[in-house]
Amino acid sequence: MRSAPLSAGAALQAFAAELYPICRSITGAGVRQTLRLINRHIELDWHEVPSGTKVFDWEVPLEWNIEDAWVADADGRRVVDFNAHNLHILNYSEPVRTALGLEQLKPRLHTIPAHEDWIPYRTSYYHRQWGFCLRHRELASLRPGRYEVVVDSSLAPGSLSYAESVVPGRSRDEVLFFTHICHPSLANDNTSGMAIATALAAWIAAAPRRYSYRVVFAPGTIGSLCWLQRNRQRLGRIRHGLVLGLLADPAPFTYKRSRRGDCEIDRVVEYVTRSIDPRTRVMDFEPYGYDERQLCSPGFNLPVGRLTRSVNDGYPEYHSSADNLALMSASQLEQGLEACKQVIELLESNRRYINLSPRGEPRLGKRGLYGAMGGRSPADRERAMLWVLNQSDGSASLLDIAQRSGIGFPALKAVADELEKASLLRAARPARPSKPKKAAPARSVRRKRPDIRSTGRRK
Amino acid sequence: MRSAPLSAGAALQAFAAELYPICRSITGAGVRQTLRLINRHIELDWHEVPSGTKVFDWEVPLEWNIEDAWVADADGRRVVDFNAHNLHILNYSEPVRTALGLEQLKPRLHTIPAHEDWIPYRTSYYHRQWGFCLRHRELASLRPGRYEVVVDSSLAPGSLSYAESVVPGRSRDEVLFFTHICHPSLANDNTSGMAIATALAAWIAAAPRRYSYRVVFAPGTIGSLCWLQRNRQRLGRIRHGLVLGLLADPAPFTYKRSRRGDCEIDRVVEYVTRSIDPRTRVMDFEPYGYDERQLCSPGFNLPVGRLTRSVNDGYPEYHSSADNLALMSASQLEQGLEACKQVIELLESNRRYINLSPRGEPRLGKRGLYGAMGGRSPADRERAMLWVLNQSDGSASLLDIAQRSGIGFPALKAVADELEKASLLRAARPARPSKPKKAAPARSVRRKRPDIRSTGRRK
Amino acid sequence: MRSAPLSAGAALQAFAAELYPICRSITGAGVRQTLRLINRHIELDWHEVPSGTKVFDWEVPLEWNIEDAWVADADGRRVVDFNAHNLHILNYSEPVRTALGLEQLKPRLHTIPAHEDWIPYRTSYYHRQWGFCLRHRELASLRPGRYEVVVDSSLAPGSLSYAESVVPGRSRDEVLFFTHICHPSLANDNTSGMAIATALAAWIAAAPRRYSYRVVFAPGTIGSLCWLQRNRQRLGRIRHGLVLGLLADPAPFTYKRSRRGDCEIDRVVEYVTRSIDPRTRVMDFEPYGYDERQLCSPGFNLPVGRLTRSVNDGYPEYHSSADNLALMSASQLEQGLEACKQVIELLESNRRYINLSPRGEPRLGKRGLYGAMGGRSPADRERAMLWVLNQSDGSASLLDIAQRSGIGFPALKAVADELEKASLLRAARPARPSKPKKAAPARSVRRKRPDIRSTGRRK
Repeated sequence: MRSAPLSAGAALQAFAAELYPICRSITGAGVRQTLRLINRHIELDWHEVPSGTKVFDWEVPLEWNIEDAWVADADGRRVVDFNAHNLHILNYSEPVRTALGLEQLKPRLHTIPAHEDWIPYRTSYYHRQWGFCLRHRELASLRPGRYEVVVDSSLAPGSLSYAESVVPGRSRDEVLFFTHICHPSLANDNTSGMAIATALAAWIAAAPRRYSYRVVFAPGTIGSLCWLQRNRQRLGRIRHGLVLGLLADPAPFTYKRSRRGDCEIDRVVEYVTRSIDPRTRVMDFEPYGYDERQLCSPGFNLPVGRLTRSVNDGYPEYHSSADNLALMSASQLEQGLEACKQVIELLESNRRYINLSPRGEPRLGKRGLYGAMGGRSPADRERAMLWVLNQSDGSASLLDIAQRSGIGFPALKAVADELEKASLLRAARPARPSKPKKAAPARSVRRKRPDIRSTGRRK
Repeated sequence: MRSAPLSAGAALQAFAAELYPICRSITGAGVRQTLRLINRHIELDWHEVPSGTKVFDWEVPLEWNIEDAWVADADGRRVVDFNAHNLHILNYSEPVRTALGLEQLKPRLHTIPAHEDWIPYRTSYYHRQWGFCLRHRELASLRPGRYEVVVDSSLAPGSLSYAESVVPGRSRDEVLFFTHICHPSLANDNTSGMAIATALAAWIAAAPRRYSYRVVFAPGTIGSLCWLQRNRQRLGRIRHGLVLGLLADPAPFTYKRSRRGDCEIDRVVEYVTRSIDPRTRVMDFEPYGYDERQLCSPGFNLPVGRLTRSVNDGYPEYHSSADNLALMSASQLEQGLEACKQVIELLESNRRYINLSPRGEPRLGKRGLYGAMGGRSPADRERAMLWVLNQSDGSASLLDIAQRSGIGFPALKAVADELEKASLLRAARPARPSKPKKAAPARSVRRKRPDIRSTGRRK
Repeated sequence: MRSAPLSAGAALQAFAAELYPICRSITGAGVRQTLRLINRHIELDWHEVPSGTKVFDWEVPLEWNIEDAWVADADGRRVVDFNAHNLHILNYSEPVRTALGLEQLKPRLHTIPAHEDWIPYRTSYYHRQWGFCLRHRELASLRPGRYEVVVDSSLAPGSLSYAESVVPGRSRDEVLFFTHICHPSLANDNTSGMAIATALAAWIAAAPRRYSYRVVFAPGTIGSLCWLQRNRQRLGRIRHGLVLGLLADPAPFTYKRSRRGDCEIDRVVEYVTRSIDPRTRVMDFEPYGYDERQLCSPGFNLPVGRLTRSVNDGYPEYHSSADNLALMSASQLEQGLEACKQVIELLESNRRYINLSPRGEPRLGKRGLYGAMGGRSPADRERAMLWVLNQSDGSASLLDIAQRSGIGFPALKAVADELEKASLLRAARPARPSKPKKAAPARSVRRKRPDIRSTGRRK
């Protein structure tokens, strides 16, 4: 992938396929293997948070690893086998080695009755138990009798892994991308998000920008909580953020607004995705979903929205073995990456300007910016200039002007650049976030919190 | 009625029927008899305001009482007879004993030409005159000739009567209900309001609540003005209010917003009545109607809406003898009472909460508040919890959350109670009213205003 | 016209016809002749601004005058002749006397290919060149050969002329009307605006009002910039303004909102024009059009809207010889004038009032303002009184009340007058403009700016 750049949908799909078979969870070897694959493409700051670390109201659990697991019938035939599909194990199952009658076993067996051929994805991170997931058709075919059950897993002190790609910009203000890396062999959820976030981070790293960028790869819930705790002195710098996931299924985009609902990121993502695909759906924030649950909890309330195609719980294959590579398409992945890039470009360009000749229109003709002959309709470019000049009192952003005028953002950006060059316009200082927080240097924070280890930057 | 509780529609209807035949006016024996009947069911603070008392721009008029009134033809036959229907007399007619030709008499005779068989309801409280109301068909049948006219009424110094049921709560903040008691034999307008207000006051008195409650029974206009003057030092305590009337006719509910238009009472009554009957109509404030005219005048501008079914002037039988007991139904009355009770319950429960674990989601599972197995959709109750926790930064009320989430208020109230019990939530202090006023103790105000007599509490 | 008042559409049309043949431009004899014709009907303060005067980012150009211009073929036949139509000359053409082959000539010849029989209107105020405009059919018929070209024009130091009719009112707060006077033989654009503005100024002058009024007649762009510069210390006084133009074509009214979008003028003009013609279109501000471009530039941002019928660039005949007297109708002109008058009347009357008896309703009956008999529906006049009294806390204007109540403005104005007479209402002080500016006396400003000559008031 390093030789063939990630920008093509095929490359995204190939990388997703590489990530798909790994048995991930919120801790353990699967997450680390995933991060290593990502790390091949981008530099990562890698963090390990030890088991037992208090994280707000939570605690990092024991690290879970698994070697093998099966249910075998009286003939020794493995009727459920972790080696066949890693969804077969209830994720985070404690180790067990026992034999049970079918009736005793059944409460440990999870299926989706409505989809007889799909294996469900089930977890039990915080309630210690074991169990298996299987096709309902398989469950139905189990005959009474005694079954051997083996879960060769371990729950032991270790750590939770997460990593981030950080690209400093001219400003310390940050744009945050966030994707969850804890789901085992589910394709859309979330090899799609991981592949796009990786390619996006590579693209970001290629050229420094106005904003600083941070792309976080972390296990859901406890992973984002660890990240929030680790970064809580620096959250005031986050000006815009986007959670990425479910970006390869056939549905059009769904943008879920931030909890605040009226952030710049909300307007920018809606504008970009609708311009790419008018079928884009925009939904209000709700406190169920991915890591926006934590990022937008009332104690943080970050300006973070979420971009997906289908939504969590919103497509039949969700959280089942049917969410496999066949559900994903290269073109959808590529369009998802494209949307993220355009969001960045729009955020970078979405300045507010000050008209330096605000009393009346400036004389554009003498600067070669306006046609020499009057009486005719102005050209589109001239009209765009009049809009930018008229609205540039420091309160309207280029996106505001685009939406008010109906003129496309790129055309306005182009004339704003020309007008700036002609000294008729200057960029206004960015508005400060509504609730500035003291920003402590990241490094000192790290030293102060020995409960969170950082293994530093790997490349 | 004391033995059979008022909650059933039949009891409401029976009480309305008891009130119906009384010849009420803004002063006099009819009002007092009405209050005595109400006083059988609930404790009342009874007030008498002497004739001549200045009340803002008004003055309490002479007390009006009537014994008999008729118009008799040359044969001595009573062609209009107060004994047959007390709408026959122009309410507040001065006494007269005379004989007149038909043409002289006619300007004193009021009918509804469009409804030949209905007697209109007409009054002349402040312009001294006499007159009769009759069916247009009867007027048409009067033959030329001399008519004897007798109005055996009195206009003499006395007092205006009003009464209120006051139930103190844990807070001095008050919820006000207001109903007019001045209309003679009109059923929907307003034996319906009187019956429901009486039953509501009885229900309120059965258990103390957060708010203090005040249910006022007063003659229209001059009665509410007397109440406002008498209570003007305490109006700042009124947090929510509702004028009740016209609650038994077949129409669905109509809620008329407060003059402010965006009070909590506006949202609560709309929510409750629409949930009871989706056909509920909501109308903006207008300065014509019942005592909201005075309560919402610009010098008071109280947070008071109005609940009716049909509106004043909005049904054909309005202010005529056709507004009789047949227009009313027990089920409509019962539903009206039910709506008022639900409004109270919602106001009592409509707290704003503070999430005590606001950084990220609290770990509900360890408190037994969330399912042990992950990967599945959250249960409705879990979803409700996430909503309450996410929104509880002290700014959103449970009703705000209900309307934003689409989850029913009772479900949110139930999980808020659970979360409060689990120390994850605490109620925020209620927001103070926008224009707090100094609240003087009621008793001292009474002493200071000798022009307003109070006969004290009767039971 | 002085003997026959301008109020009739026929008079407006006659005056427009008188103005039509003049070859106007942004400077020169045509503008002065136009102002002299206007000056016959109204007093004018006349201003001359010398060539070379710096005006914000601009400069007053050399004065342009033209005696004759033609293109003649080899036979001496004038194939394009300024005497035939003054649109034939590219407005502001520099003098030339030459002979050219057809191919060399063609780039100087402007047509409208889509409308073969119309002569376009083209200008080149700031880029020195010469050219001719002609029918596309004429261009097509030109045979190869040599053509004599004569433009007998002059570009020489002189001045730009504009004038204004100023009628002081009781308040120094001003209402501004603005119309452009630079277009040569184009009828709708803008003899219609000039005729209506003249008649309006005459009507305004007939009676002093609350506001001061200023009707400005100025060349487009550079003319309004001169006016803005000359008056920049006094712009804070302008409370409402309206640019007038294109008011005689068959289309219904179009009101273009001020840049602010929520000014009183925006609501007033929309209310008035919709009540005259429900087909009235209202459009948001855009920075292309007439002198609202300058008046609403971000450095001034005046509360100025624009009233037209068709909009600039919005009808086929726009800026061509087809915009001639046949496009105009007397009734449209008359309706346009009527709209302006009603706007003034509404602005004058659109007071905010204080209810002087705000606690409860005042007793209207004892003042003879309310019917003596109760029980009936209130009369429309009574209902209007209740609305005005209820809303008059100093925050709602009569127009606010009209829009909230659905009662017509005139009816509300009538009862407000009655209530004021009855001492129940008093007018609130007008709200100050949001950005008050220091207002220097006009005369001293004139003295301080020797670069702008004023020839004083002519009558």
